[in-house]
Amino acid sequence: MKKLPKERLPELAGEIRRKIIEVLARNGGHLASNLGCVELTIAIHRVFDSPRDAVIFDVSHQCYTHKLLTGRFRDFPSVRLHGGISGFTKRCESCHDYFDNGHSSTSISQGLGLLTAWNLDEKSRGRKVVVVIGDGSLTGGMAFEALSHAGQISKNLIVVLNDNQMSISANTGALSRTLSMFTMTRSYQRFRYFIDGIVDRIPFSEHHLGKFIFRLKRAIKGFCLSVNFFTDLGFEYVGPLDGHDMDSMEEAFRRAAMLDKPVVVHVRTKKGKGYSPAENDPASFHGVGPFQITNGVVEKFDSLSFTESFSNDIVSFASRDSRIAAITAAMSKGTGLDAFSRKFPERFFDVGIAEEHAVTFASGLARGGMVPVVAIYSTFMQRAVDQVVHDIAIQGVHAVLVLDRAGVVPSDGETHQGLFDIALFRPVPNLVMMSPASAADLRACLEYAFGAEAPVMIRYPKSSCPSELPSFSTKIDSGNVGRGIFVPCDEFEPSLSVQFDCEQRPRQFGKVLLVTTGGMYCEVLQAARILLQAGIRADIYTLRFLKPFDVASFRDVLSGFDGVVFVEDGVRIGGIGEFLSSVASSSGVRSSVMAFPDRFLPQGTREQICADCGMSPKDIARAAGMIVGGSEWS
Amino acid sequence: MKKLPKERLPELAGEIRRKIIEVLARNGGHLASNLGCVELTIAIHRVFDSPRDAVIFDVSHQCYTHKLLTGRFRDFPSVRLHGGISGFTKRCESCHDYFDNGHSSTSISQGLGLLTAWNLDEKSRGRKVVVVIGDGSLTGGMAFEALSHAGQISKNLIVVLNDNQMSISANTGALSRTLSMFTMTRSYQRFRYFIDGIVDRIPFSEHHLGKFIFRLKRAIKGFCLSVNFFTDLGFEYVGPLDGHDMDSMEEAFRRAAMLDKPVVVHVRTKKGKGYSPAENDPASFHGVGPFQITNGVVEKFDSLSFTESFSNDIVSFASRDSRIAAITAAMSKGTGLDAFSRKFPERFFDVGIAEEHAVTFASGLARGGMVPVVAIYSTFMQRAVDQVVHDIAIQGVHAVLVLDRAGVVPSDGETHQGLFDIALFRPVPNLVMMSPASAADLRACLEYAFGAEAPVMIRYPKSSCPSELPSFSTKIDSGNVGRGIFVPCDEFEPSLSVQFDCEQRPRQFGKVLLVTTGGMYCEVLQAARILLQAGIRADIYTLRFLKPFDVASFRDVLSGFDGVVFVEDGVRIGGIGEFLSSVASSSGVRSSVMAFPDRFLPQGTREQICADCGMSPKDIARAAGMIVGGSEWS
Repeated sequence: MKKLPKERLPELAGEIRRKIIEVLARNGGHLASNLGCVELTIAIHRVFDSPRDAVIFDVSHQCYTHKLLTGRFRDFPSVRLHGGISGFTKRCESCHDYFDNGHSSTSISQGLGLLTAWNLDEKSRGRKVVVVIGDGSLTGGMAFEALSHAGQISKNLIVVLNDNQMSISANTGALSRTLSMFTMTRSYQRFRYFIDGIVDRIPFSEHHLGKFIFRLKRAIKGFCLSVNFFTDLGFEYVGPLDGHDMDSMEEAFRRAAMLDKPVVVHVRTKKGKGYSPAENDPASFHGVGPFQITNGVVEKFDSLSFTESFSNDIVSFASRDSRIAAITAAMSKGTGLDAFSRKFPERFFDVGIAEEHAVTFASGLARGGMVPVVAIYSTFMQRAVDQVVHDIAIQGVHAVLVLDRAGVVPSDGETHQGLFDIALFRPVPNLVMMSPASAADLRACLEYAFGAEAPVMIRYPKSSCPSELPSFSTKIDSGNVGRGIFVPCDEFEPSLSVQFDCEQRPRQFGKVLLVTTGGMYCEVLQAARILLQAGIRADIYTLRFLKPFDVASFRDVLSGFDGVVFVEDGVRIGGIGEFLSSVASSSGVRSSVMAFPDRFLPQGTREQICADCGMSPKDIARAAGMIVGGSEWS
Repeated sequence: MKKLPKERLPELAGEIRRKIIEVLARNGGHLASNLGCVELTIAIHRVFDSPRDAVIFDVSHQCYTHKLLTGRFRDFPSVRLHGGISGFTKRCESCHDYFDNGHSSTSISQGLGLLTAWNLDEKSRGRKVVVVIGDGSLTGGMAFEALSHAGQISKNLIVVLNDNQMSISANTGALSRTLSMFTMTRSYQRFRYFIDGIVDRIPFSEHHLGKFIFRLKRAIKGFCLSVNFFTDLGFEYVGPLDGHDMDSMEEAFRRAAMLDKPVVVHVRTKKGKGYSPAENDPASFHGVGPFQITNGVVEKFDSLSFTESFSNDIVSFASRDSRIAAITAAMSKGTGLDAFSRKFPERFFDVGIAEEHAVTFASGLARGGMVPVVAIYSTFMQRAVDQVVHDIAIQGVHAVLVLDRAGVVPSDGETHQGLFDIALFRPVPNLVMMSPASAADLRACLEYAFGAEAPVMIRYPKSSCPSELPSFSTKIDSGNVGRGIFVPCDEFEPSLSVQFDCEQRPRQFGKVLLVTTGGMYCEVLQAARILLQAGIRADIYTLRFLKPFDVASFRDVLSGFDGVVFVEDGVRIGGIGEFLSSVASSSGVRSSVMAFPDRFLPQGTREQICADCGMSPKDIARAAGMIVGGSEWS
């Protein structure tokens, strides 16, 4: 590829684009971002010597071209599938991937660390580090922490700002118009030192004349050279360049690599470039499910998802209560808040990729009398643990934290699973934690949260809502706070109610209770049906409240059963299962905990991931059968 | 105070300073920061109408003057004492305190949320929000997230940058010299609009001439007006002002309050102002224990603390292994890394208050072949949970995360307890988690960590190390990974070994095992002595490894005992006790879990906090006695 004559490059780019569109139409994936940086990635790989030089992609949801250029063309059709290659950079796939990325705004820190280590090591000195970061990722605070540190360390870190004008603010956008390629030439470098030298010899003090002179000096520099946000932090700045013009990018990268200080190369790209449905609606094609290539029509969920249900509910609650505000961190479509944002723009706040600020800003809104709802994916809320503890729970403000994509997340792999939130947030004092099992249950939880005058966290999975049962609509009042929803088998399987008289214990086998977080209700329901078919009575108890937890009432529920299985869509260590099993054992009921194992879980469908972890409906039924039915289940 | 004539104000400031010095000499506290902002706080309270207007202090370790001016003069001698007023702002103390603060860089988010809510509410519109933030706190990424959002929202948030030149970087420092009071006058505002208007009429394009003109426009603005980091983000900027000149500050605040956009008022203060020992060594007097007023001599620990032990160890390991680097987040003295920084400046990185970047930067160093040690207080590591999961654990890099101040933290109250780390980090796959009980144990843990080629977290308390026992020096090898240290009672109490033959079970009572995290060893040791005195044999098992955990070997240890008590210096929910008690119950051993309750714990001495939570040595002995000794212990 490096040896390919320049005139053949557009052909290469076209081939890569066709491959990406063709595979993603089947597998789904981050289409728009990947189509946007085909030429940029080719230019980087032509100038730098990967893997000797490191190319680090922030988030890395734009790394498909990189993968196709570094030996993964043949495997690419498996991208995001179970057992296939990842949609993100992955160390185990290739030595060209330096980090397993997935969350935003980390790449400058990673690159700076790597470069610093290489500079301290005789053998590695001279190796280059290139970081590719989008304008959206730059809004994350830790990117700023890293820029600021990089400016101090002042080594030749090359930060490519991939600006697709999706989320950069107006002010930063204004900045980006400032400069030109002029700053890159050697003659410019000499000129710069010359001007610097002259200006620095002008004396100044802090009195009026001094200040005047200081401003004058800055103005001279600002005119002759470049002064902006990045240069203030100690970076050289180049740009903006056309991110689809490989020639000019190659030249800029070559020059950037010769500097002795950190540099931002500002590149403008078009999201979805080369595929008109994505160019016209890049937000919808950011992360997309399978679609038809000819018209870009995307396959949909058969039924209402939890996200859609939340989206409708929040608009309806906010219509009745003008205190309700909504906040998201660059996920207004993904969390379903887009409907709210159109209906109540003055009460809607998209803070960019800035989960920490989102949570603390909500705390401020709550102190000012609003009732903020912060909707963020479970995996991204890991970014704001301290803010949930300090600015929500310690203050005890009335705020609602909604975790979408809690539990198993299908195609994005290790970095996007929502399996830690129970372990992370159940220990936080003052915080109510809920896990609804259906759309009606979610509505009841939200209604409770808006009336609670306390911080409430509600978590639900990325999946369609199950069929409703009357029990799920039970309102929450002072009498059932801390309690789950008991669903006797004749409610979800009325046809079997003759066979299993509620009052009468089946003769041959025991009677088992399947206790589950809301997110695993569908798997547990299937498990219960397997057990019922086999003649074991299985009732279900869904954990609407993970905290507070009414232990006394739970003991009452347990008392009628011979065994109980606890199912949770979270990690076993630190989960609620360890606690519940101690309650069961002190109640003399045999129990088994089914939770996710102590390892990071790769991509697959929900069914595949559950099966890999021994969490499928069959596995759940087997565990229950072993407790009450005996050895034929093992 | 508002009505006090100007000439009486220095007298007031002097009285406040005397009070602060007098009380802190007894109680300890944040001396230097509080002495630095006496005049600043007086000026704010004279101009703004608290509590109708909100004054929010970032971290709030500089709020003593604010407390003294808002009705807490009489209670001030109890500051930081058990049952006394807090060293931080606290909602339950006064309506003048809007948030219970304690961690850095949150105030702009809080203030922006509050102001936004007030602006949406007819009744509250016009109330002002003033945020006081130090230059150190401004290095935290979430402060940048908030500045950027505030620039977009563009309401009159007043951010007072309290610049004591402690941690601001050279570049930002350079920025701060830019401007003068000139920008505050009404005539300046008019002039600004005039210039803006002219400049904006100059046409420009993205071609060469256009770029030239754009630079020219920026230069004109830069000369006539003010262009810097803050103005680029949409803020007005004023300063720098003398932070001990109340007149000029009052004038600036009055004008800042009249603007229709966010404004940064940059104020220069001197840390420790008015007390020469603190002026001369502000770092040591940042947070200080009791000291002698006349000479500033500070009381010391009687014996070596864990921090000092780590400080010595890390220098000695690094002398032998040039791959070892050390990183801290503005806590080089507090973590004991100052010795390392003097010895190995090229391998030492203080990234400022930027825990997220610190952890991910370490990940980069590790990928480049270094072995980074990140030393951060337990409470502050809550800021970097996601980075520990993603950039350390998912990458599986060889990095050592050292949590100082884990467990009970005495005088700083709810926001500084280190009680969450076990619940937060034990669920993280790939991460080894250790809790040494003594200085020798800490050294063994570090030695293991440096050889492990995997991420290791080591946690220890803010306390002196206990007397050594031979068992604590046991080296860690493949044979005892995952195992704790068994300390039979004749090792810590040899004088009693006659009474309790190791092989022989005492007749009257049972034999009990006290299992403890390293940080609670001292309390457990005292409990064991109480039990021994009462004729109950009590051995100790310290949990050197919280993870991985060798369950089989632990069952072997348990088998000889009639009962076991699990003691942990962390919260009960999600702690290791819930897990261990399930191991005990499946081994048929009666057990009791002693951990910290589900509420935020206020300040006190370590002994007072433990006693309040039923975690004193007596409580531990009583729990053990009840298991094996019977009813007289209840």
